[in-house]
Formats: sequence, C-alpha cells, structure tokens
Amino acid sequence: MSLDTILTRIDDDLPNALKRLMTLLRIPSISTDPAYNKDCLAAAQWLVSDLTDLGVDAEVRPTTGHPMVVGHVGEGAPHLLFYGHYDVQPVDPLDLWDRDPFDPDIHDTPNGQVIRGRGSSDDKGQLMTFIEACRAWKTTTGEWPCKITFLFEGEEESGSPSLVPFLNANAEELGQPDIALICDTGLFDRDTPAITTMLRGLLGEQVTITGPRMDLHSGMYGGAAINPIRVLSRIVASLHDDEGRVTVPGFYDGVPEIPAEIMEQWSALGFDAEAFLGDVDLNTPAGETGRSVLEMVWSRPTCEANGIIGGYTGDGFKTVLPSKASAKISFRLVGDQDPHAIRKSFRKMVTDMLPADCTVAFSDHGASKASVMSTDDPAFEKARLALSDEWPKPAAFTGSGGSIPIAGHFKTILGLDSMLIGFGLDDDLIHSPNEKYDVRSFQKGIRSWARILDALTK
Amino acid sequence: MSLDTILTRIDDDLPNALKRLMTLLRIPSISTDPAYNKDCLAAAQWLVSDLTDLGVDAEVRPTTGHPMVVGHVGEGAPHLLFYGHYDVQPVDPLDLWDRDPFDPDIHDTPNGQVIRGRGSSDDKGQLMTFIEACRAWKTTTGEWPCKITFLFEGEEESGSPSLVPFLNANAEELGQPDIALICDTGLFDRDTPAITTMLRGLLGEQVTITGPRMDLHSGMYGGAAINPIRVLSRIVASLHDDEGRVTVPGFYDGVPEIPAEIMEQWSALGFDAEAFLGDVDLNTPAGETGRSVLEMVWSRPTCEANGIIGGYTGDGFKTVLPSKASAKISFRLVGDQDPHAIRKSFRKMVTDMLPADCTVAFSDHGASKASVMSTDDPAFEKARLALSDEWPKPAAFTGSGGSIPIAGHFKTILGLDSMLIGFGLDDDLIHSPNEKYDVRSFQKGIRSWARILDALTK
Repeated sequence: MSLDTILTRIDDDLPNALKRLMTLLRIPSISTDPAYNKDCLAAAQWLVSDLTDLGVDAEVRPTTGHPMVVGHVGEGAPHLLFYGHYDVQPVDPLDLWDRDPFDPDIHDTPNGQVIRGRGSSDDKGQLMTFIEACRAWKTTTGEWPCKITFLFEGEEESGSPSLVPFLNANAEELGQPDIALICDTGLFDRDTPAITTMLRGLLGEQVTITGPRMDLHSGMYGGAAINPIRVLSRIVASLHDDEGRVTVPGFYDGVPEIPAEIMEQWSALGFDAEAFLGDVDLNTPAGETGRSVLEMVWSRPTCEANGIIGGYTGDGFKTVLPSKASAKISFRLVGDQDPHAIRKSFRKMVTDMLPADCTVAFSDHGASKASVMSTDDPAFEKARLALSDEWPKPAAFTGSGGSIPIAGHFKTILGLDSMLIGFGLDDDLIHSPNEKYDVRSFQKGIRSWARILDALTK
Repeated sequence: MSLDTILTRIDDDLPNALKRLMTLLRIPSISTDPAYNKDCLAAAQWLVSDLTDLGVDAEVRPTTGHPMVVGHVGEGAPHLLFYGHYDVQPVDPLDLWDRDPFDPDIHDTPNGQVIRGRGSSDDKGQLMTFIEACRAWKTTTGEWPCKITFLFEGEEESGSPSLVPFLNANAEELGQPDIALICDTGLFDRDTPAITTMLRGLLGEQVTITGPRMDLHSGMYGGAAINPIRVLSRIVASLHDDEGRVTVPGFYDGVPEIPAEIMEQWSALGFDAEAFLGDVDLNTPAGETGRSVLEMVWSRPTCEANGIIGGYTGDGFKTVLPSKASAKISFRLVGDQDPHAIRKSFRKMVTDMLPADCTVAFSDHGASKASVMSTDDPAFEKARLALSDEWPKPAAFTGSGGSIPIAGHFKTILGLDSMLIGFGLDDDLIHSPNEKYDVRSFQKGIRSWARILDALTK
C-alpha cells in the first residue's frame, strides 16, 4: 500500500474530517475560567472516544486541574509521542466576534475556505491533523505505522499547572519515545512549512496594588489619598526604557546573540516585516532599538502588560478613587534566562517602587525557560524533506515568538527531543476574536503528517 | 403657631418620613447607565406625586436626557429655589455591598441608627430633608413660609448634560428667586454644621489609546507591536511630578492662594487629618508636597485616574497584546481655572506623547468651573445662626472637595447666589458600596431646614 493511497484517502475523507473537527470545536473548553470545567472534561472525553474508535488504548486521566488524555497504540520503531492541547483561550471581548465562537462554520474568504471558531487553529484544528493522518493510515493499511503515544493536555492556555507533576508521575508509562511531535506552531508563510527549533519561555505575574481600604469619592479624598491606578501606571510605565529595553534588574542575564549563520538563514527567508506589521495596521517596530522585527519576535526577550484594570470602567463616568488596581504582566524569555530569578527581581523592583500606604500582592501565572532544539537527530532532516514534498516551498528551521513549555518539560523529564511542526498562519487570529484555521492548513496538515510518518518509518 | 410646634411635628412624623424615603431609595435611578432610564423617570414621577400631595404645582419636565422635576408653591418674600438630585451613582462592585443597594434598611451601629442603601446620603436622603421640613410646616400651619420653587435634577452623577440647556430655556419660568438652597453637601463633623462656600469644579475626560487594529497574541507579536497599555500607563504616570503637582501645561493658571484669614478659620476647625486618612487605612497625604490635607481637598486642584482598563482582566491569564486601552481621568478645579483651556492642554499633552502607530480618542465627560460664594447676603448669617441653634456646635463657612456645578450655573444663568447646606458625614460611603445616611442627619436635617425657613422669613 503506497503513501499515495493514503494521501488520496485523506483528500476523499476531508468532509468527514471537517465534521469531526466541528464537533470538537463546539465544546467551549476554556481552561482558565472555572465556569467551563465541565466542558474541558467533555473535550477530553470526546478525544478518548475518537481515539478508542480508532483502536487506540485511550483514557481520560484526572489531574488536580483539567484532565490529560493518554493513548497507546501500535508497535515498532520509532516510538513517537504526539502532543496537542484541547483547551482554548477565553473569547472576550465577545462583541468583536462575527459569530458565536463555539458555533463554528466553514466559509469562503479571498484566501480560500476557512474554519471559523475558537480553537480552530489553537489547538484543536492542529491536533486533529495528526489524528486524521493516523485514521487514514489505519483505514487504508489496516495497521499503524509504528508505536505511537498520544498525550493531550487541557491546561496549555492557563499555564499548565498539572503538566510537570503528571509527566513525573507517569514517566514510566509514557515509556522511552524516540522523539516527540508537537503540533502547536505555524507555517513560516502560506507556502513555506517550518520546523520550529527555538521557542521563547514565558513568565506570568499578576500585580495588585491596594491603597485606601475601600473605594473613595474623588471629590472628598482626591488629592489627599493615594490612587492605586497612578501607582500601577508608574510601575507599568517603568518596565521599559526609552530604547525599548526591559528595565528589570538582571533581565538580560543569559540572553545570547544569535550566531551569524542563523541570522543569514533568517535573512534568506525574506521575512516581510512591513507586511507583518501592516496586517495589523502598524508600521513601526516597537521593540528594542536596533533589532529587526524577526529578532524581536524570535530571539529577543520581552515584557508586555496583557491586562490592566482599576476603578470604574463601565459606561459614563464615576468619580471614584479606587481601593485597588491590577495588571497582568508577562515576560517572554530566550536562551538561558532564568524565570525564577527574573520573577524575584521583578517583585523586588515593584515593591521598591511602592509609595507610602500602598501594598502589593503578586500571583504566579507560570514560569518556563526558553527551548532551543538540537537538529542533529536525523528525524529532523527526514521531516523537513517530507514537509518540503507537500508544500510549494522547502521547509525551514525557524524560531517562534510563542512559548510552548512542553518541549522543555519533555527534555527535562523524559529526556526527549521535540519536533514542533504546525500549520497555523499569522492571520489565524489565535487568542483574538474571529479565530480561524484555513481548510488548506487542515488538509495539507493531515497530508504532511502522513508523509512524515512515512518518512520516519522507512 | 410657633417654630417649636413645627419641630415637634417633625419629630412625631419621623417614622413616616423614613418610610417615604425608603420608597424613593428602592428606585434604582442610576443615571450614567442607560439600562436604568425607566427607573430615573420613575424617581422623577414619585417626587412629582409627593410634591403634588403637598399642594405644589409640580411636573416631570422632559429633557434630551433624564427629566427634571419643577414645582412652584407659596407666596411672599424671600423667593427660594431649592435644588437636589434624584439620580444616584452606579453600585459596582456589587459583591462589596452587605445588602442589595436598592433594598434599603435602617439598623443600629455604634454611632446610632443609619439608613443603608444607594442614594441614602447622595442625594435622596438629603433632598427629602427639605421636602419633609416643608411638609411639617404646611401640615402644622396650613400655609407655606414663602414662595418656593423646587428643582430636582436626574443627571447630577453623570455630568448634568441637560442642566444648562434647561436653565437657559426655562429661566423666565424659574423667575427671579432671591437665593438658591442646595442640599448636596455635608456637616463639617458630627456636631458641627457647615455652609459650603467654596466648591471645586470638575473636568472629566475619557482617553482611549488604540495600537494594533485587533487584539494580538503576545507570543507572536510581543516585542514588535506597540502595546496600548504601556502607552496609556506612561500617559497616566506622567500626569503628576515627583512633588505631586499636576503636569498638564498651564494647569495652575488661575489657582489662588487662600487668604490668611480663611486659613486661620480652617485651622480653628481642628480638622483631624490623621483620623480622616486613618479612616481609610492611610496615613500619608498623597497630594502636593507642603500642603495640608484640608488644603488638598478644599482648595487645591487635582488630577485622578478614576478608572483604567485594557486587555484581559478576567480570572487566570491570557497572553493577549490588546488593541485598545482606556482611562477615565478627572480634574478637580479651584479659583479661576478654566476647564476648557485645561481640556485643550491635556489633550495636546496626551497627543504629543503618542508613539508611532498609536491613535487616541477623547470623550468629554463634563466641564465646570469652581464656585466661590460671597457671604455678604444677610441670608448666609441668618442660616448660619439657625443651624447653630439646631446642632451642638456653631456652624462654619467651609470649603468642599466635591464639585456641585449647579451653583456656578445658577450664578451664571439665573444671576443667583447659592447656599450649600447639607447633613452628610465623611463616613457615609457615598459613591462606594454600603452607602448610608445617619437617621440623626435626616431628623436634624429636617429640623435645620425648618429653622432656616423660619429665620429667612422673619
């Protein structure tokens, strides 16, 4: 039975594969909001059911948070560990969506058909590309290409608190796979597939400043009482200097310069910084002076305020002097930056800035180091060639601005290298209203995995 | 019929007066939120009904916003114009209330009985003190003390957009009162009544910064795309210098130093700055270096951020790089500060701070100059003595940190001086959860007005 037969089966079965994906997308598995706990469980159960139908020995596995899905199937080398996540980002602001985020549809756009809905790209659509490739393989050949372990997480969008304990507790069962496949990244561009070999780490902190013990009338107390919004604004404003550098003491410890040969490879990709920013109506890079946009998003660390709130934020006006103001701050980390050292330095910096009468409370929203893969394993080159066969342009080894801590945990806990391969596009609006996944990404993604499975088992 | 008979009647009728107030408090007349438009109308209708029962020729008078209530009654000098407002502040955060804000009750506290509920002090409880004094006078004597015009507004908590047009359009009907009585201020302390002769003006601005055209993933764009929270924080942080002075160019034009004799009067009041701040768990004055707390709240201009919001503000964490961030900023003005000039300078300052790729939108939330009353009219001294008869300590002429633009409009449009007399306390939690009004304030407030009506008509 040839690879071509499997690829034909994939194309023929696409309408059914899309229907399965739509079913999964209808489950509002928002992991960060406890109101959706039951939906997260339902998404895990749906995946177990689908894997079981394929003959995989699959189970929902409880954690202290949302459950894992673990499945085992097949025999023979190599042993592959496939990872994806079934949880999704929150959907607010809901009024910016053109449709119910959990009532997905497929419709035409100038760039072809797209699947619209929360999770279509991040990560339900992506993880289903691998399951559908396996389904086509099994249906066509009656066999599995090799030994495969499936691992689906339900807390990726909320800091993965259960992941490390779960990997530690179940390392023996997960066995000693030869390599991990992680499908949560993107194409380099519409025609150029990518294997991501550099991922930024992520440190999340929530900072809450308290001044007066209750909300006050700004007429009665304004001028005399400390305003926590003013204090918080000073703190957020102080996190960058005029050159766009992060001011947290010691922040740049362990940040490497990218070797000249990698910089040359990146130059050869012909990245269009103007178009990248222009897509979102921007034209001036906002990061460190003297760095290219590709450096800013692939290889430089950052600090961003992801949210801020305090006082009256409804319609109209209320002359309140609030008791509290709060911000969610995240840091993207590269190279050998130590998230725990940076957290400590950040907290000290904030505490040192507090004026009289103010207190600060911090909450920890995760800490992961950056991941840098070695591409020495021949599997990387096999996968690169397989991807190059499917897509119009050859595949590239790239960096990524996002943070996928799982790759680091696989290395540390299971001693396992990861290949990060995915089919998302920059305009997928992941984490934003109107998230979508191109039907082309989905179809060619499935075909890509079939080619990679074929290449890795030859 | 003597004043004593009227005062006795007030004391005897207190249970009924409280019942009437509770009925008015049950109407959630939040003017700033369009969801409560019908309730604002209902509060206006309730007042018209109550005044009509007293024999006042009263009407609900439509405006482009919430209606006015106008009533005419009585004959003879002086002609008094009484003003209050029936709208109330929003109630969020609702979870900090000990009970439904619109299901008021009366209960005991260590300082005596209080009426708990939104609007109990600001301003429904206060405006009812005057109506109840009139009711007792009419019931006891069968007559009105003099010609009285009632004017109740429903937009005081949302910038009074209809007030000036209404006064201009109805100046003839309102006639030429001798003086306005405004009941929306407080006692100096529990035992010391006050006639407020200095009121700060108020300028409200909403500032919305837009960067990228949509919310972005901070992994994909973080570092390269401008973050509007960072921009807004810089703007808010820049509004004060290290000495606590407001940095808007020209802001202090028209700010007078308080004359030595007034400062001496204020010193004699024995204001306890430590207790004032200590009540809300603060101990360090946060305003301009070198100014007393009483100066900060009575005679110095301020700038406060009353609200800020941007990005993800729900539970958990979301690594969004938001498209927009917004703040509500208010300025309290004194002396001859020109709110329109300050608005223009503020907007220029903000616009000049914008980095590349950011735009700003402003919304105007009202502008009023400070009011400084002349106390030459003998009515001021008559009222001061009448108040001194009712309360344990003599009445004082004081300043107020709050803004009651109506006094300025009465002067400008109707050529009318205002006496600001009210019975609120600093711990009334106006604009905050658990707003209350002391039953003692209510009862002695009604009695105070009876004494003032008696003094002014003798």
